[in-house]
Amino acid sequence: MIDELIDRMLKGDKRAAARLITLVENDEEKAREIVKKIHPHTGNAYIVGITGPPGAGKSTLLDKLIRVAREEGKVVGVIAIDPTSPFTGGALLGDRIRMQRHSTDPGVFIRSMATRGSLGGLAKATNDAIKVLDAYGCDVIFVETVGVGQIEVDIVKTADTVVLVTIPGLGDDIQAIKAGLMEIADVFVINKADREGADATYFELNLMLDLEKERWEKRGWRPPIVETVATTMKGMRELWDAINEHRKFLEESGELDKKRRFRAEEEVKTIVSDRVARIVGKMLSDEEVSSLIDKIVEREIDPYSAADEILEKALGVKA
Amino acid sequence: MIDELIDRMLKGDKRAAARLITLVENDEEKAREIVKKIHPHTGNAYIVGITGPPGAGKSTLLDKLIRVAREEGKVVGVIAIDPTSPFTGGALLGDRIRMQRHSTDPGVFIRSMATRGSLGGLAKATNDAIKVLDAYGCDVIFVETVGVGQIEVDIVKTADTVVLVTIPGLGDDIQAIKAGLMEIADVFVINKADREGADATYFELNLMLDLEKERWEKRGWRPPIVETVATTMKGMRELWDAINEHRKFLEESGELDKKRRFRAEEEVKTIVSDRVARIVGKMLSDEEVSSLIDKIVEREIDPYSAADEILEKALGVKA
Repeated sequence: MIDELIDRMLKGDKRAAARLITLVENDEEKAREIVKKIHPHTGNAYIVGITGPPGAGKSTLLDKLIRVAREEGKVVGVIAIDPTSPFTGGALLGDRIRMQRHSTDPGVFIRSMATRGSLGGLAKATNDAIKVLDAYGCDVIFVETVGVGQIEVDIVKTADTVVLVTIPGLGDDIQAIKAGLMEIADVFVINKADREGADATYFELNLMLDLEKERWEKRGWRPPIVETVATTMKGMRELWDAINEHRKFLEESGELDKKRRFRAEEEVKTIVSDRVARIVGKMLSDEEVSSLIDKIVEREIDPYSAADEILEKALGVKA
Repeated sequence: MIDELIDRMLKGDKRAAARLITLVENDEEKAREIVKKIHPHTGNAYIVGITGPPGAGKSTLLDKLIRVAREEGKVVGVIAIDPTSPFTGGALLGDRIRMQRHSTDPGVFIRSMATRGSLGGLAKATNDAIKVLDAYGCDVIFVETVGVGQIEVDIVKTADTVVLVTIPGLGDDIQAIKAGLMEIADVFVINKADREGADATYFELNLMLDLEKERWEKRGWRPPIVETVATTMKGMRELWDAINEHRKFLEESGELDKKRRFRAEEEVKTIVSDRVARIVGKMLSDEEVSSLIDKIVEREIDPYSAADEILEKALGVKA
């Protein structure tokens, strides 16, 4: 069945691709089989990560980016990561529905991912879905996250180009962005730039980049700041150009190869973590392990020693 | 040195406790040693998780909860988890400073945690810090998270009592809370209840609980909804009472033992995940593994097969 699905997907069957993503998301054994088989067909898609705080208008921006990319005849994939947080979940769904206008376009593939559950589960499912879309023939794959958790940041940072979307008037948050995402952003967007405070935000971001000059000079790429009003298409072409310029920089400097290597490393790490988490999870229902947990609660053994015993039993690892 | 620190900490030396937390946070080997040695002295503290969206006033609430608990003579520990997200980092710091008024009180221990980095790192460091505060003699330990990421939710759900803080006028977010945190909340708080919309929020939460009646009946505990205005102390005693009532329920129903068992399980899981992540991380600098990554990039091997090889090499696990 999987061989047939892959065959159809490689011939451009969208529904087959959708089925395959569902399989890699939900069935570990099938994910293995599918990724093994499609891996040789991957490596052509360019991955663009789009992140930013809730309310920055990322989905509208993405909606318009799809349009620009489609005008150039690109086959576009979108993986929208639903936040693992229950707090920000609701608001997004409306935006996502807006994006679905493209779903009748055979050259656009949109998928939401919201794998909760074990450590690494979401990252692994996203990796695998990227592979399916890559093999399906997407030229560019946008991976959108709300960037509110470490897992989401980890996912987006494996992209080729990372676009960080902010809006005027976030105030203190600029400071916060500085601390964390500065390092992984390749292009800054000030969306809703017709709002009051856009100039101040531009000034602040620019100053921040000036202060970090050494870092950009070493990298050879100073992230541009693009002002957009996604709802009216203002700045959208400039954003698309900025993404492509970054791509050109990566290709010419050899950085793209390094990024892809990094992505492969991260991918292997998440596969390993996920497998180990499942092995350990299964073991906890085991009677012997179960009694170890009792002993921790009764203070007869400490959790580190218990972990050692489990690691040795499950994986043959000696402390 | 560690033995001496533990000795001093067990005698109530706050600075020794602080040093020990720094050690468990930063040094894996020392964390092992410390937790092994203090484990027999733990198990007395009651853990209260406090979570909710940014801006819900959790830090002020916590500030006042500390006061109420201190009036009863309780020794109080606070572990404030700094969000792993760079977006929400800035705003919190101000609130945290407010809480520091208690830091001169020998019966209050406040600690911020912000371990970024590998999977499970934050959860493990939090577990270990809880243990130190428990052994130090804290009667109650508040663990505050912003609840914006899966990791933070995972941390808070291991608490004995989980308090979910919301505020009037979050609108759609109530819907979102329903989807995710409902299951782990033991007490609901509507903070800033003097604001417009408090009644509507109460009504919505209550309706939600009515709809989930079956679940609460099975659990034997219907989460109460407490309205507070933390800044004026309104409702703070009621909140403290609600927490203690939940504690009584857990103790009498035997649920407390189950919760502690669950916590021990999660703790062991995070220790195992963390160790495996480190083992694999180290291996990636290994030449043999490094060439495996190259092969993935060149499509000579797929990531799952590479992960198998690494697992076998690192941990002796056969696929």
